[in-house]
Amino acid sequence: MIEFEKIINLTVDKLLKYLQENKNTDTKVIDYKSPQTLKEKLDLSLPENGVPLADLIPIIESYLDHSVRTSSHKFFNQLWGGFEITGLLAEMVTSTANTSMYTYEVAPVATLIEIKLIEALNDLIGFPQGEGLMVTGGSNANLIAMLCGRHKLLPEAKNKGLGNHQLVAFISDQAHYSFFKAANLLGMGIDNVVKVKSDHDQRMCPQQLEAAIQQSLREGKTPFFVTATAGTTVAGAFDPLLSISEITSKYGLWLHVDGSWGAPVLFSNQHKHLLQGSSLADSFTWDAHKLMGVPLICSAILVKQPGTLLEACSSQGTHYIFHDDEDSAYNLGAMSLQCGRKVDALKLWLAWKYYGKSGYEARVDRLFELASYAADYIRSCEKLQLIVQPTFLNICFRYNPRDNSLSNHGLDQLNLEIRDQLMRSGQALVNYSHYQEQILIRFILSNPNINEADLDSFFANFIKIGDSLS
Amino acid sequence: MIEFEKIINLTVDKLLKYLQENKNTDTKVIDYKSPQTLKEKLDLSLPENGVPLADLIPIIESYLDHSVRTSSHKFFNQLWGGFEITGLLAEMVTSTANTSMYTYEVAPVATLIEIKLIEALNDLIGFPQGEGLMVTGGSNANLIAMLCGRHKLLPEAKNKGLGNHQLVAFISDQAHYSFFKAANLLGMGIDNVVKVKSDHDQRMCPQQLEAAIQQSLREGKTPFFVTATAGTTVAGAFDPLLSISEITSKYGLWLHVDGSWGAPVLFSNQHKHLLQGSSLADSFTWDAHKLMGVPLICSAILVKQPGTLLEACSSQGTHYIFHDDEDSAYNLGAMSLQCGRKVDALKLWLAWKYYGKSGYEARVDRLFELASYAADYIRSCEKLQLIVQPTFLNICFRYNPRDNSLSNHGLDQLNLEIRDQLMRSGQALVNYSHYQEQILIRFILSNPNINEADLDSFFANFIKIGDSLS
Repeated sequence: MIEFEKIINLTVDKLLKYLQENKNTDTKVIDYKSPQTLKEKLDLSLPENGVPLADLIPIIESYLDHSVRTSSHKFFNQLWGGFEITGLLAEMVTSTANTSMYTYEVAPVATLIEIKLIEALNDLIGFPQGEGLMVTGGSNANLIAMLCGRHKLLPEAKNKGLGNHQLVAFISDQAHYSFFKAANLLGMGIDNVVKVKSDHDQRMCPQQLEAAIQQSLREGKTPFFVTATAGTTVAGAFDPLLSISEITSKYGLWLHVDGSWGAPVLFSNQHKHLLQGSSLADSFTWDAHKLMGVPLICSAILVKQPGTLLEACSSQGTHYIFHDDEDSAYNLGAMSLQCGRKVDALKLWLAWKYYGKSGYEARVDRLFELASYAADYIRSCEKLQLIVQPTFLNICFRYNPRDNSLSNHGLDQLNLEIRDQLMRSGQALVNYSHYQEQILIRFILSNPNINEADLDSFFANFIKIGDSLS
Repeated sequence: MIEFEKIINLTVDKLLKYLQENKNTDTKVIDYKSPQTLKEKLDLSLPENGVPLADLIPIIESYLDHSVRTSSHKFFNQLWGGFEITGLLAEMVTSTANTSMYTYEVAPVATLIEIKLIEALNDLIGFPQGEGLMVTGGSNANLIAMLCGRHKLLPEAKNKGLGNHQLVAFISDQAHYSFFKAANLLGMGIDNVVKVKSDHDQRMCPQQLEAAIQQSLREGKTPFFVTATAGTTVAGAFDPLLSISEITSKYGLWLHVDGSWGAPVLFSNQHKHLLQGSSLADSFTWDAHKLMGVPLICSAILVKQPGTLLEACSSQGTHYIFHDDEDSAYNLGAMSLQCGRKVDALKLWLAWKYYGKSGYEARVDRLFELASYAADYIRSCEKLQLIVQPTFLNICFRYNPRDNSLSNHGLDQLNLEIRDQLMRSGQALVNYSHYQEQILIRFILSNPNINEADLDSFFANFIKIGDSLS
């Protein structure tokens, strides 16, 4: 135990040093190395004989040194970022108390915590009788939603297979790719996921949705499922839930909300209008590892009608694990697609205890403020062009001086080059995307510890490189 | 940072205390409370306003106090157990450096580590050109294997859907339930998973497999997939891989090995014969969080033919994340069903560095020794009956004194009662299962820190309760 204490303390030292460095303005967000170079730097080998425990410390240090500093104030690349102390504490406890979420028997506290969290999330959405489960990510939640929708329409498919039915799902052309992966898995085929055109603000057009449903019916197919995205991946758009729900209700289709990115606006009195109508959905995806800052993975699928998950996901052959006893209603594994399942609930529960609902409201509001600051910066800067008017925390822009004479292709190349130089110099990590025949920079606000000075500094560096290249 | 250091150190103290208690022979493995009672004990509430950081310590302590002590020497309930210091260290680092496994760009070191581990596992299996990926559990790996098998036979299903094909998969009647869940998901229907009869030792009968395939062909269906289980859930049986592979090869079917539990026998020169023929498989499931002691979840799907996963699992709509650059071959997310994905590689890599291959060999061999000791104990004890002759680390037995006059049903009730009293007194947690119209106790050896004295003590307590009840 003394040896354990020593090695844990040494690891804590390295982690604190790493976090301290991340706050330092001189620290590169990434020390980019190609796979080949990095392979030569690291000792990746898996040895025949082990090493003493103490030898793991330099190995851990090297892991940290070569990792991207996702909690740095220069990281804007992903829909997550920042460091949460509650996440570290919870993962320490989770891995030490190591258990699996299938039965109450072996995970009593974690089961009750997960149930409590699911209740709280359903409460925010407006599913008073709702059920839910923590799952392996937003993609997995979207898959389960589609499975539930399929099961509601065709319960016989579970045992007999899909048969001749040509099921069709509808998503916006800005929705996440996980719906294609889900359609592949579910045996309905990717071609049967219809991408409904979105409007100028990247929101799904309800008229186009209805037209697509009717077209599909004319072709003799079976529409069954519509996703409204709450916070699209690239532009952060919220599909118009109320109008969409009128259509799904008219045609009797399952309405799923993919809130992987945008769900936490529900904490904010100021911004929850973006999800007005959430209670009209049949299911809802919520990733706490994005906007809520919990370490990856912490995702939930929420379902309005209780009993749905068990019906859609259960199977035979589980008698060795799910015993028919007084606690069996608490065996969450029966309605899961996983058997062994990590405890992801503790880290969200602990964070919620620490921040409270009001803390999450403040977090969301603060990030909106920062997004607004960033958008204003771009609007007022003649070197930069805002490509989409932001409604959320995604800022889509590019370097495009008002007096420039570059072709669209030239601008694309220039912006890619700026982004690449920012990364290779370690000044910032920010992502880009293809969008309507052009390249845009997708700048994400999700770390609430970032401040206005960090934004000033990011844009100044961005412009400086742009100027030097043009 | 000083506040962080303080709270981390307080948490470390609690964890060390907890681990110390788990070693103590007086400590109950479980302090059983019904869900209702436990709810009253805990403050599960998610408050409107947060609490100071220091207030999280008693909350963490309460979580630990009410958790099942899965690293105790009295825990024999699951196919995992024990505590590994490398797991704790790795999860501390993973959650602090918090990144996602989709792109090399944002997870350079973790990507190279995962690739290295996949190579090493493929090397043990005998897939020299193999590929693979860490996934969300054994169930998920089995699903992906089935998807790959489907894709090989019917690549058009990915875009067009399954259509009229009635695909049929074959597993032993002792195989894991995840194959039923996979068949539901994949749209082929649970009824199209044929349970092939196993023999007296719980191994799939090859003759029965061939007969089932022929039957399915006569019915105009399309056999495509066979699972050989390496270590069944209840009895720990290894299906006869060589004979099965002759049949899958004859009929052109995908051969999957579910090694969730038994794969690590490949580390042992003495025991790897149980998986003789592993290189003949097309895919392989490996859970490092079971026999290898890594904290949950740490699973891999391994595939013999490179390119399979990308073909079977990729989709459109990923341009915002997977850029076509020089590192793109290292973007593991392209072949994953997840988008955001936790780093599960570090904990296995660190453990492997620490133990080495020879350490894992010693671990496997030691657990076989303990299983053999337990089986001998039962054989030599006139109060106990060994129900299945063990070939692996599952000991299936029951209390059944040679002179008893109880009915089969009476014995079932008695054994359930013994098991229940062991749990409620905190003396041991061990699982049970239904098996050929009777109840058996399934006693699992997977924590190598358990010793012979722990086994003596378990059986003595078991018999004592049995005697007191009969």
